[in-house]
Amino acid sequence: MEDNDQNEEEMKHFRDVVAAFCHYDQWIDTLEISFLKLPESHQKLIGDTMKAKLSTLRQRAKDNNQFIRNLVRGTDLFQNQSMAAQFGGKGNREIPLERDMDKVKSTLRQFSRWDHSGEPERVQCHTPILQEIERLYGSRSDKSSVRILVPGSGLGRLAFDIVSKGYSCEGNEFSYFMLIASNFILNTSQEEGQYELFPFIHQASNVINDDDQTRPIRIPDVVPSKILTTGGNFSMSAGEFVETYQHQKGEWDCVVTCFFIDTAKNIIEYIQVIYDILRVGGTWINLGPLLYHYADMGEITIELSYQQLRDVILSFPFQLRGETLMNANYTINRRSMMNTTFNVVHFSCDKIN
Amino acid sequence: MEDNDQNEEEMKHFRDVVAAFCHYDQWIDTLEISFLKLPESHQKLIGDTMKAKLSTLRQRAKDNNQFIRNLVRGTDLFQNQSMAAQFGGKGNREIPLERDMDKVKSTLRQFSRWDHSGEPERVQCHTPILQEIERLYGSRSDKSSVRILVPGSGLGRLAFDIVSKGYSCEGNEFSYFMLIASNFILNTSQEEGQYELFPFIHQASNVINDDDQTRPIRIPDVVPSKILTTGGNFSMSAGEFVETYQHQKGEWDCVVTCFFIDTAKNIIEYIQVIYDILRVGGTWINLGPLLYHYADMGEITIELSYQQLRDVILSFPFQLRGETLMNANYTINRRSMMNTTFNVVHFSCDKIN
Repeated sequence: MEDNDQNEEEMKHFRDVVAAFCHYDQWIDTLEISFLKLPESHQKLIGDTMKAKLSTLRQRAKDNNQFIRNLVRGTDLFQNQSMAAQFGGKGNREIPLERDMDKVKSTLRQFSRWDHSGEPERVQCHTPILQEIERLYGSRSDKSSVRILVPGSGLGRLAFDIVSKGYSCEGNEFSYFMLIASNFILNTSQEEGQYELFPFIHQASNVINDDDQTRPIRIPDVVPSKILTTGGNFSMSAGEFVETYQHQKGEWDCVVTCFFIDTAKNIIEYIQVIYDILRVGGTWINLGPLLYHYADMGEITIELSYQQLRDVILSFPFQLRGETLMNANYTINRRSMMNTTFNVVHFSCDKIN
Repeated sequence: MEDNDQNEEEMKHFRDVVAAFCHYDQWIDTLEISFLKLPESHQKLIGDTMKAKLSTLRQRAKDNNQFIRNLVRGTDLFQNQSMAAQFGGKGNREIPLERDMDKVKSTLRQFSRWDHSGEPERVQCHTPILQEIERLYGSRSDKSSVRILVPGSGLGRLAFDIVSKGYSCEGNEFSYFMLIASNFILNTSQEEGQYELFPFIHQASNVINDDDQTRPIRIPDVVPSKILTTGGNFSMSAGEFVETYQHQKGEWDCVVTCFFIDTAKNIIEYIQVIYDILRVGGTWINLGPLLYHYADMGEITIELSYQQLRDVILSFPFQLRGETLMNANYTINRRSMMNTTFNVVHFSCDKIN
């Protein structure tokens, strides 16, 4: 009975996410309203360029909307039921939450990891991890028997890159936004640059040229179905990391956390589970900052410094290797007048006992 | 009558700000609560270091609180009435808003502009402006008759640097947090490094070493009263820029906007007022991003790209000179694992008619 309630709640949440995707293009109206509230003399001053800009933005929003329709259509497969059934049921609310609408926009931003322009970030964030994996397992003849887990896999690019090298990899993700998007790009794309989308149109602050705001990305830069014809198994799991994996003790050769460990409310619990699910001799590879997601959100959360985290790690039978700090970005808009740079910590931990 | 109501509202708001300062050290308790909600085994694991860290943070919060008491004591002068009278009246609420508490913390952060560690940002943000002022007016024998306005003057360091060079300068600021803090540092400090404060203790995310979080700054690096014995007039005005200055037509030789123009709901109005208050032949010097403060706040706001802003500027009888983009930071924590870098636009505009 409780399970049924939980499933019903999950289904409602899923429908809310789909609804947020479906209401995506509402934001454009507020721009026009803002413009029309200007004093008439100011409207006149910027009227021509503003109308042209709003018209372009509206067109690009339509293009994004078309892309989103494809995305949502892909959820048929995903939930193994027809769209009609999904829309037949009700979500938790009629109008999507602002927060969910923001997540739709940030999901579009994440797709740049599957565009040529995402190359610098893939080099910063994925290459050091892939190099460490190759160093550890590259000489194996049975690479596909090496089982690698990527919790917080987002749009699945890192997990895909790992499978491309011949390993077996499972991505795990909690957010339906990410799951719907990764399902789409991994399973339905057929040619390079098949989809054009405009992930920067929502950011009107810190724009230098109007063209910067309306420039496209073309995805995917590589087609998963063309690459993944042989080699390791590739799977994605949906759910919260601790709940999903805590009982899979000793089952994994390698756990890769990339911009993930700071998503914990209790990071010590994450470390515990990572330790538990690795086989003895297995390795945890980490790269990321400590931007605790639940900080300043009124939730109970424990925010350890790296110094403290290190002590926690070393209280387990882990051998810590190759600690380095390195610069990395996370789905930035390179043409923006404002960007965040992380000084991420990268290390490996071998489970020695 | 309306004026009285408005004054009463202003006074209430002022008391809310003072109250937020006075309740500053509440945040530390939530850290301890978070720790005590951890599973017992996890508490044990990090207990020793965590207790030591919490104890240090509590001590540093006390030190900050002592500093804040000095700050608030300075408001006697500021509002020309006794503390008793201020606390006698009521603000709008019993418990300070979370938002106001955050502003207390960010005010403490801003003081790094008055510390030796603020030098790199002063070089990035103030030096290009000071060089342009010297280029324009440096050969004058009557520098003190050059009247320069700095709207959004924050803690007053740029305005102070301008006066130090012999010019007359007025800072204008809307936020009571900034006004209370700038009043204090400009008017009451007596020796270099007189005050020690700990502006980084509130940021528990992205900390590498615990010492990074508890390190002090010592202010001021220069004592205003020692420097400003001769030369130009120095004043500060309180109020919203447009309201305060729109009628001072042709009264200013130079308007300096540093990380300011994007605080407008309607940036065109700012440009209009800047144009109006400059004398013919006067110059507007700008340096900053376009991080529109009212974007995503549910307010009506107009967010122009720099390309559009440029068109607006050139629709006035302004001669635009020396446009450049340059990297700049804004009160960052250099030891953090996460920092924002701006690619700011810097230019000068001469009012030619």
